[in-house]
Amino acid sequence: MTNERVFNFSAGPSVMPEEALLEAQKNLLNYKGSGMSVMEMSHRSPAFAEIFSSTQEKLRKALSVPDSHEILFLQGGATLQFAAIPMNLSSGGVTDYAVTGNFSNKAAKEAVKYCSVHIAASTAPEHNRIPKQEELNLSPDAAYFYYCANNTIYGTEWQYVPETKAPLVCDMSSDILSQPVDVSRFGMIYAGAQKNMAPAGLTVVIIDKTLAGKELPFTPQIMSYKTMIDSGSMLNTPPCWCIYMLGLTLDWLLANGGVTWMEQLKRERAKKVYDFLDNSSFYRAHALPDSRSDMNVTFRTGSAELDASFVKEAAQRGLVNLKGHKIAGGMRASLYNAMPMKGVDTLVEFMKEFERSHV
Amino acid sequence: MTNERVFNFSAGPSVMPEEALLEAQKNLLNYKGSGMSVMEMSHRSPAFAEIFSSTQEKLRKALSVPDSHEILFLQGGATLQFAAIPMNLSSGGVTDYAVTGNFSNKAAKEAVKYCSVHIAASTAPEHNRIPKQEELNLSPDAAYFYYCANNTIYGTEWQYVPETKAPLVCDMSSDILSQPVDVSRFGMIYAGAQKNMAPAGLTVVIIDKTLAGKELPFTPQIMSYKTMIDSGSMLNTPPCWCIYMLGLTLDWLLANGGVTWMEQLKRERAKKVYDFLDNSSFYRAHALPDSRSDMNVTFRTGSAELDASFVKEAAQRGLVNLKGHKIAGGMRASLYNAMPMKGVDTLVEFMKEFERSHV
Repeated sequence: MTNERVFNFSAGPSVMPEEALLEAQKNLLNYKGSGMSVMEMSHRSPAFAEIFSSTQEKLRKALSVPDSHEILFLQGGATLQFAAIPMNLSSGGVTDYAVTGNFSNKAAKEAVKYCSVHIAASTAPEHNRIPKQEELNLSPDAAYFYYCANNTIYGTEWQYVPETKAPLVCDMSSDILSQPVDVSRFGMIYAGAQKNMAPAGLTVVIIDKTLAGKELPFTPQIMSYKTMIDSGSMLNTPPCWCIYMLGLTLDWLLANGGVTWMEQLKRERAKKVYDFLDNSSFYRAHALPDSRSDMNVTFRTGSAELDASFVKEAAQRGLVNLKGHKIAGGMRASLYNAMPMKGVDTLVEFMKEFERSHV
Repeated sequence: MTNERVFNFSAGPSVMPEEALLEAQKNLLNYKGSGMSVMEMSHRSPAFAEIFSSTQEKLRKALSVPDSHEILFLQGGATLQFAAIPMNLSSGGVTDYAVTGNFSNKAAKEAVKYCSVHIAASTAPEHNRIPKQEELNLSPDAAYFYYCANNTIYGTEWQYVPETKAPLVCDMSSDILSQPVDVSRFGMIYAGAQKNMAPAGLTVVIIDKTLAGKELPFTPQIMSYKTMIDSGSMLNTPPCWCIYMLGLTLDWLLANGGVTWMEQLKRERAKKVYDFLDNSSFYRAHALPDSRSDMNVTFRTGSAELDASFVKEAAQRGLVNLKGHKIAGGMRASLYNAMPMKGVDTLVEFMKEFERSHV
């Protein structure tokens, strides 16, 4: 129990900018003189409409989203998108999936209900690397090529945008807003908000408008991209509080230099940990050097017992949620956008100390 | 612009208990010494697991939910349920729908994609009353009977629970937790949280476990009640903040006497407004006396111009969001659980004054 804030290395939901939290706290019972909390606002009210549209605009600015692409604020997380994507974009035909971890695997399995899934690449069972462009076995007539930009569990991240004839559909849940992206190269980008954007409960979809409108007949209305585009994401009540928090996070991001600033920071954060790991014979990084994630650094000592001690002792120092996912084991340090550099420095310091006292 | 809180008569999202908001504000950056906001917590962490399970327990207690029924915390609102219900419960057969307003009409229209929809009753186009039991034209082999307990837009509310052979499926979005309910009589109850429970982004489903597991083959995993029951609503990251806020609302409700207390309050609140309306020749209530909602009181002056003045002048007095839904016109005063009695008294006082100055 502490009265201070910890360094939270959770893979998601995860650390948020303190500036955003302070602003939310200040306005919690009375948003800018409206006499009510954002949580109490009608989604059709002028006050909330302003929050909604300004948040969309800030996101468009932060990622330089072209006019060809619509920004949607949805619910249901990536898991809902696993079904919505083939329902809307496959027309029941062939689709290409790159399976590089747990979530792309889940996406491919769900898609089998709706289309003919072709595994264009797989890094199972190790998932310690990203396939190279020339390894991608692309179908000539795929409706889309699906991949997950960053694999939270295994700590790998695509260092390039694949070249494909089919539209790219990318799950950017765990690295969105961490670097510039050429959105025009994507048919669709989507991301659960709970890592780099906002509290859990919001899914951002950025979609080339020309791809929408071809959904399978049994597609639920709420899962139709066309319906959501036409209703401005307001077919029903959106997750208003999460949208508000996304706006506050974007204020913080844009005020500090946007995704270019964030890219520098993320490289610096990750480099500190990887450099230390590479110079240590005590720890071992899971991901291969050319496939490493800047967002989730996965490593282990080689002893499950020591790994457990590491996680426990780290928590006592205020470095929390360093336990790896149960599928992968070991440790995982998630270094999302809002992780302060001091958190990274303190982590590396602790890793050194732990090594010294356990070698 | 005001520095004080207004009386918010919004139909949803809507007023929340000030006690719940104050507690959320206090813990916003550091929940009970955890060193982090609830918004930053891993949904798998012990701290959040405690919030999740205690909230489930409080809801079970508040509504006396029997062990036969599971409580699920989902996303997507009623609109997602419009599809999920027939996908999970119809087996593609015949289903009965009572159409008494906008949302039951939407539910019936969406269900047509998945099953054979029989309209067992309709109050269109006026929707100013609830059908009597003997008016229900029930199918002998319906998979379920669907109705919406309270019609937010038209201001009508079922005063009885229908007798049917088929399991009852009820949308209680706008009157859940406002009165005791015999949950054992229902196959399924569901409710969007944004009226009587929590911020928008959470859908509560209370389902007889024996009904789950018969979903149509193309049902998305996230829409399968069976999958959600088996995963304890944690197939993916749930809307954590909304669940936390529901817990705080339930603390407030249970500390004050639960749904029995709330039922007295809601009758008293509504009676004050209806009694005034019935004694006025200036205003007219929309709903027929035996069908009136305690949650949403709909009324008008008979002049669209006066209605607009009413809404505008009321807002200047801190009585906000009294404009009726665009489908129904006129005025609507939503008197949800967290509406203070002072708000109702101030409203009636204003109605009197407005009448005096505009007769």
